[in-house]
Amino acid sequence: MTQTFRKKRLEIIVEEPILGRLTDALIRENVTGYTIVPALGGYGSAGPWHRENALSRAGHMVVLVCILDERLVESVLSAAYGIVSRQIGIVTLSDVEVVRPDLF
Amino acid sequence: MTQTFRKKRLEIIVEEPILGRLTDALIRENVTGYTIVPALGGYGSAGPWHRENALSRAGHMVVLVCILDERLVESVLSAAYGIVSRQIGIVTLSDVEVVRPDLF
Amino acid sequence: MTQTFRKKRLEIIVEEPILGRLTDALIRENVTGYTIVPALGGYGSAGPWHRENALSRAGHMVVLVCILDERLVESVLSAAYGIVSRQIGIVTLSDVEVVRPDLF
Repeated sequence: MTQTFRKKRLEIIVEEPILGRLTDALIRENVTGYTIVPALGGYGSAGPWHRENALSRAGHMVVLVCILDERLVESVLSAAYGIVSRQIGIVTLSDVEVVRPDLF
Repeated sequence: MTQTFRKKRLEIIVEEPILGRLTDALIRENVTGYTIVPALGGYGSAGPWHRENALSRAGHMVVLVCILDERLVESVLSAAYGIVSRQIGIVTLSDVEVVRPDLF
Repeated sequence: MTQTFRKKRLEIIVEEPILGRLTDALIRENVTGYTIVPALGGYGSAGPWHRENALSRAGHMVVLVCILDERLVESVLSAAYGIVSRQIGIVTLSDVEVVRPDLF
């Protein structure tokens, strides 16, 4: 039986120009890793949009995924929200199980 | 303490040619936003496939993610399933917490 | 009322060169489908990285998402972890609901 451990999955949808500020904040809050996925397009309060050029880093939205230990959730969520709240962006948190607890 | 609110995360994996019909249906059902991520490849009942060209919108699959208020789930799920059920596509729903409830 | 069924969502973040071995193992374990999303960049124990070239399959990380019936979780998780544990990679599991239980 593979043992699993409860962690939190933080998913942040944010405009690429803000990404550097966001990842700096995550690392400052002791996040041990994150992964960024490109968005192809979407729809929000500003209407629909789509990415014109392959994986260009200019403009448009990206999805950052990050697995957190419960003890980091409050500070990381607060730091992330501090950056994203003044911009277009969505912050969601969900429950996940992981196999290697030492990584987070 | 950052307050969070329970919402639902809808994830729909669908072929790109159907995407327009799907997003029209979501907006008709009062979804306030969604994000589309390109799939690079995958495997399903039709066997394996992979995307040949960068972020071309032709053919292949995409992943649409959408955060919903609980009161929209039934109608949105039904509308999404009405479109995806006759095609290749996967519709999943999960629990998430968000910081800004007014966005959904 | 659209009926939903509980399944597990397996998300594996892994380096692309290992992907073939991982997907072979998933199919051997009777997984009925998966979807692969490209990562644009990220951060982990080896520091930050980002993808230089569009959707090139060489190097870098990808995110594999797979919906599993509960009865497959133990064997699939064990097979996936057997491959990913010696590499850079993150395996997470979460609860989801699906509309078509026969697909998984």
